Amino acid sequence: MQAAIIGGGVIGGGWVARFLLNGWDVSVFDPDPQAERKIGEVLANARAALPMLYETELPAEGTLRFVDRLEDAVAGASYVQESVPERLSLKHDVYRQIEAANPDALICSSTSGFKPSELREGLAASTRLVVAHPFNPVYLLPLVELVGDADAMEAASGILTGIGMYPLKVRAEIDAHIADRLLEAVWREALWLVNDGIATTEEIDEAIRMGFGLRWAQMGLFETYRIAGGEGGMAHFVRQFGPALEWPWTKLMDVPELTEELVTKIGEQSDAQSGALSIRDLERLRDRNLVAMLRALKREGSAAGAVISDHEAALPVPDMSGAPMVTVARVIPSDWTDYNGHMNESRYGQIWSDAADAVMAHVGAGPDYVGGGLSYFTVETKTRFLAETHAGERIRCVSRVTTGEGKKLGISHEMQRASDGAVLATCDQFLLHVSLETRSSCPPKPEVLARVEALAAAHRA
Amino acid sequence: MQAAIIGGGVIGGGWVARFLLNGWDVSVFDPDPQAERKIGEVLANARAALPMLYETELPAEGTLRFVDRLEDAVAGASYVQESVPERLSLKHDVYRQIEAANPDALICSSTSGFKPSELREGLAASTRLVVAHPFNPVYLLPLVELVGDADAMEAASGILTGIGMYPLKVRAEIDAHIADRLLEAVWREALWLVNDGIATTEEIDEAIRMGFGLRWAQMGLFETYRIAGGEGGMAHFVRQFGPALEWPWTKLMDVPELTEELVTKIGEQSDAQSGALSIRDLERLRDRNLVAMLRALKREGSAAGAVISDHEAALPVPDMSGAPMVTVARVIPSDWTDYNGHMNESRYGQIWSDAADAVMAHVGAGPDYVGGGLSYFTVETKTRFLAETHAGERIRCVSRVTTGEGKKLGISHEMQRASDGAVLATCDQFLLHVSLETRSSCPPKPEVLARVEALAAAHRA
Repeated sequence: MQAAIIGGGVIGGGWVARFLLNGWDVSVFDPDPQAERKIGEVLANARAALPMLYETELPAEGTLRFVDRLEDAVAGASYVQESVPERLSLKHDVYRQIEAANPDALICSSTSGFKPSELREGLAASTRLVVAHPFNPVYLLPLVELVGDADAMEAASGILTGIGMYPLKVRAEIDAHIADRLLEAVWREALWLVNDGIATTEEIDEAIRMGFGLRWAQMGLFETYRIAGGEGGMAHFVRQFGPALEWPWTKLMDVPELTEELVTKIGEQSDAQSGALSIRDLERLRDRNLVAMLRALKREGSAAGAVISDHEAALPVPDMSGAPMVTVARVIPSDWTDYNGHMNESRYGQIWSDAADAVMAHVGAGPDYVGGGLSYFTVETKTRFLAETHAGERIRCVSRVTTGEGKKLGISHEMQRASDGAVLATCDQFLLHVSLETRSSCPPKPEVLARVEALAAAHRA
Repeated sequence: MQAAIIGGGVIGGGWVARFLLNGWDVSVFDPDPQAERKIGEVLANARAALPMLYETELPAEGTLRFVDRLEDAVAGASYVQESVPERLSLKHDVYRQIEAANPDALICSSTSGFKPSELREGLAASTRLVVAHPFNPVYLLPLVELVGDADAMEAASGILTGIGMYPLKVRAEIDAHIADRLLEAVWREALWLVNDGIATTEEIDEAIRMGFGLRWAQMGLFETYRIAGGEGGMAHFVRQFGPALEWPWTKLMDVPELTEELVTKIGEQSDAQSGALSIRDLERLRDRNLVAMLRALKREGSAAGAVISDHEAALPVPDMSGAPMVTVARVIPSDWTDYNGHMNESRYGQIWSDAADAVMAHVGAGPDYVGGGLSYFTVETKTRFLAETHAGERIRCVSRVTTGEGKKLGISHEMQRASDGAVLATCDQFLLHVSLETRSSCPPKPEVLARVEALAAAHRA
């Protein structure tokens, strides 16, 4: 698990963070003397945001190395990501050096515009090179467009899925792949609206984020329009909607000239809109919003949220063999804090509930058992709040089964700060085993009861 | 507060829901014999989704009336929303009838394409008519584009803000206003990608929702690019990014012909992508996702979430003059339930925490007091879970102050189902007054203590 990152700007830095925070060792080559500082800033953002997407801990961070020679970065790497400036001759030069230093590595390019056939010029036929085009911030957005040879795409896809991304294989090579073509179309139209004084940059942003931006974050374009078409289906919609748009379309074809006047106008409007915040402030605001929305989609099991859940399912679970057992190990996400700046009291309840779920799963009463119509319901909890907990802190919950008799399950939880073991809160939780059909209490299945009794005995000892 | 809705399709139905659920009486005219059924379906969706955006109850629903004649709908209405099909002669005919029946009403058109100057042809100069173009689902998305005379836009803006929307005043009239111009540009480009076999409808949707859709839902286009430009600012970004895109742009100008082959291709791809779900299923999926994302943005105070918070701040608060006091009155949102299908145990903690906040605000220890460095922290809670609670249910929490002495504040909460008063859970909560500076306990300000003592005495009685 060693990745080489060639070129360390915002995109390269995002790649560093994705790999490093998923347990890969990462070596970076970038001749820019500022590269280490720049990557450090991206990495700080990523460390503050990415772990919050998960209800469990990410693997231990890999080792980050900055090297002075490209060949030192790629030697031993199974994956090489190139994110150097968009000049074809520069990219060719980089690929030849990579090929010479490590002919077996998979080379992926972050290019937003070039086609694989252009990138491959001058390389050996055996060299595996694909476009792997990510989206900023790379450490939070799942999308990566893959373009190239089927085998190489498949190899890249497996690695990128493993670091929580969503590889989209593009069927044929084309300038700017898929997403950037759509972005360019909107960008051109938006420039016209500013140029013609119809709307300011801020008004255009509001027109997007108060309306169709919300639709697109979860369903995209076609599925949204499919709904608009109703039971008549998508073809019906295209037949209806298509002709009505032809006339405006014919007016939207020109490209606005980027005169100094237009550039200045956009710059001034953008300053008026967002100038009160620094770029770092905006990045943090963006990341908080993305974390919150991604977590919302994750709860719904939809779109990018499903990607995170799939990734989480592949992460290591806490070791529950000890006594007491570690039932929860996680980072406190930003949306769990209240206006006092510390974790909202309800989220302690979330920890106890998650800890109880872990215990249930451990005794054989997990989701499958619940799906079969039996479960434990919490009847009473008693929580003591001992110290404050803040967003971004790593915590773990250790749990002991205190009662395990018949329908009764008592669990005692202790929530600890991972950094120093300080006890943040405790909970005594009393659950009853119930039938989900009759909605009244009943004994658990014998094999579950046996495991509950065994745990109670072990935890008493 | 009487609105007339002329034309009751998906958009008209969405308007009905927005007004009705915000306490307006609504009269509907639509000659379609299916109108009542269709609006009923939209209304059912809206009732299931819109109240979940708020941590407090919406006003009591207004009265809905279906009438057989347009003049009966608009008589007495202060606001008229026209959503008839996009034929200019039909719209002119409707406006003349409205004008004759109610010359004082504000007439707003849902048109996605026509300009106010076209719509106004043949109307009296005194008639107030503006474009008020909403986005589907109208009951969840805040955006409404206003185009027209400044005074009429201002009048419409006040009313639409009052029903929780975000009116965007467009500076100059133009075909398709703002958002639909951007949508058309993307739509055209997407049709090309399908036509040329670069991507399927599903792949294009993934390219949007796994990447820039998430960016746009919270920051839009320009603010996102401002970040990409870094400290150099937006003008710097345009100068850098603009020229690089000119070459691809020149390839994207043609309009794809909507041949039967292309229409069929899109229809088949969309069926493969989403055909397993009915349109109703898709609507519910969309609404759940939108509710979850909007609630996430609301917690962050960003974008559309800030609109909801502003609206919520204008909603009536529970009456806290009784003993015991009603401290929480709300609907349980869908993201509060767990895999058992009932409200997660942590969310009971949310109710107790919100109820305590309401008590604190009531005794003069609200956000301003906390901002001044003093607060009550919860030290211990004891919760009893008595019955299940489900998403969509209306609940209220009644609270009694049981202890109010010095630094100590004890509150006893009872959470009830609003429909039948059944007690769902109880909580005994013990709080200590603390200094946020020293992080240790201290006495409250005398005026706060006096109110706490008075409540404790009143609630004992």
